[in-house]
Amino acid sequence: MVGTAERLVEVWRGDICESEHRGHVAVWHADAGLIWALGDIDRPMLPRSSSKMIQALPLVESGAADAHGLTDAQLALACASHSGMPVHTGMVTDWLSALGLTEDALRCGAHLPYHEPTRDALVCSKCAAGQRHNNCSGKHSGFLTLTKHLKAGPEYVDPAHPVQRAVLAAWEELTDETSPGYGIDGCSAPNFASSLKGFARALSQFAAARDGADARQSAMVRLRGAMMAHPLLVAGEGRACTRLMEVMGPRAAIKTGAEAVFAAIVPEHRIGVAVKIADGATRASEAVVTEILCKLGLLDRADPVAQGYLSGPIRNVRGTVTGGYRLTEALTGWQPRL
Amino acid sequence: MVGTAERLVEVWRGDICESEHRGHVAVWHADAGLIWALGDIDRPMLPRSSSKMIQALPLVESGAADAHGLTDAQLALACASHSGMPVHTGMVTDWLSALGLTEDALRCGAHLPYHEPTRDALVCSKCAAGQRHNNCSGKHSGFLTLTKHLKAGPEYVDPAHPVQRAVLAAWEELTDETSPGYGIDGCSAPNFASSLKGFARALSQFAAARDGADARQSAMVRLRGAMMAHPLLVAGEGRACTRLMEVMGPRAAIKTGAEAVFAAIVPEHRIGVAVKIADGATRASEAVVTEILCKLGLLDRADPVAQGYLSGPIRNVRGTVTGGYRLTEALTGWQPRL
Repeated sequence: MVGTAERLVEVWRGDICESEHRGHVAVWHADAGLIWALGDIDRPMLPRSSSKMIQALPLVESGAADAHGLTDAQLALACASHSGMPVHTGMVTDWLSALGLTEDALRCGAHLPYHEPTRDALVCSKCAAGQRHNNCSGKHSGFLTLTKHLKAGPEYVDPAHPVQRAVLAAWEELTDETSPGYGIDGCSAPNFASSLKGFARALSQFAAARDGADARQSAMVRLRGAMMAHPLLVAGEGRACTRLMEVMGPRAAIKTGAEAVFAAIVPEHRIGVAVKIADGATRASEAVVTEILCKLGLLDRADPVAQGYLSGPIRNVRGTVTGGYRLTEALTGWQPRL
Repeated sequence: MVGTAERLVEVWRGDICESEHRGHVAVWHADAGLIWALGDIDRPMLPRSSSKMIQALPLVESGAADAHGLTDAQLALACASHSGMPVHTGMVTDWLSALGLTEDALRCGAHLPYHEPTRDALVCSKCAAGQRHNNCSGKHSGFLTLTKHLKAGPEYVDPAHPVQRAVLAAWEELTDETSPGYGIDGCSAPNFASSLKGFARALSQFAAARDGADARQSAMVRLRGAMMAHPLLVAGEGRACTRLMEVMGPRAAIKTGAEAVFAAIVPEHRIGVAVKIADGATRASEAVVTEILCKLGLLDRADPVAQGYLSGPIRNVRGTVTGGYRLTEALTGWQPRL
């Protein structure tokens, strides 16, 4: 049961408000706790791919990443929903090969790349999409690395597998909640639930982590740094995570998830931001997270990339402007005290 | 400003309600008037492509369709958001040629076909998409036929053009409202607004029309019959309009529109149904219209096509069932007296 969501984004066509998006927002400060909330932040939600940095935490915290000499680029890919561009799939192939494995060890399934030129080249070459093209293949390469480190069995997406038990433990510790359950994700891995508030808390722990404080904090610093250093690896050409991180520079690590979840880690403010659009529309989660990043001083509203996510314009196939987005006062009215 | 929408569809993943869709529903009986409503049915809305049978009405009512010997298949295509399959684009090319025109006369713009095998074949042949591939090229061929009949100028998408003035007149007469404005559609034609209630009223006029009663009613009978006789031409392989009309047989003419509008014309009950999902999600408008068609006795819930739209299941890329849809009681609780 979904609680009452707040109206956040309107979609206009000419003078008509054609559609609207409701959602939930939680902003958590590592010291002050919850500093802003909209909608229902207590109901169980699934973070989907926006929690990939938490799913990658046991990989680094356990020492598996260091034992296998993983680079920051590989860690960024472990946190990615990548577009299946050659830069992504090449890294996955090399990574699996270094583990003595092939694509067959993956359990994510195959789908065509999101990146259209790559997709089209693959289709026209009459080659089938492989599991390396799955947007989650970096995360799964991380799971396989930890599997090897733990000398565990090959069915690493089983919720009872040591890798997933480690992910659940990290998830519950960072959210400070007992997870109410999980869903099977698009890539067949379990995706653990929490409240949106708990998810924002977890993200704030990443924001406030100090290198050298302990194994977990050092791992969190490494993962957020890897994401910020490699925006293209975290998503792909033209995608919101990549474009917004490129514009912001290494000031925030952000990650989208299916069904319109968006996560942001802001080290300089020790803040974690969790957004969930009730209806699952990505255009709205992108608008909302962009607005919050502007409010936090990390993005300039006048920047054309930011502007595109905030307000459009929306154009038709002939390039005519047909409308745009407008954010509601519930969203724009908040002024963070930083 | 969008009024308060009713919760209609939940999207579940495992035991978690992951997303929800709100929306508006109006069901109008040609004699009894409004017989059911959910949400806000009075605010201005854009029907988008779900109003194509109304946009095609002047073409038939004026005598232009008969003067040019248009077939029922062509009229179905005039009411279509087609997938750009060879059967669709071939008909458009022939139609334009019979008018002494080429694709250049269209004003809809070009986009790749929705039908994936056709899209891929086009991309791999290194040919660019043409305006004939635009899902609205049938509607525009109808506009061009009426343009020729009226000896009007070539810029037929201008709201001041005689074709669009005729569409607006039909729209206002059938909705029994003064249109509050219009939006520019994806295909560059004006899309006139009304209330959802007014749109349902217009659809009920199509449902109750009698052949031979007058030129307008005969035109409405012809258009609804053309849609029901040619489900594949109205959309394409695998699409909801096509699949549901194929299952129902010639008992209802249905038409989807962008931003999750759905229209249904039910002659045997003299009913028009108009659905608008507030957030623009097609998965929800398809679920809601399917539920209403089941309630009206036109679809069997046990039919696998109906079931797929009503409840899923939703599967991931490995084929694992990850969740499904559930309709709220606000929707399922209604029992029409027929």
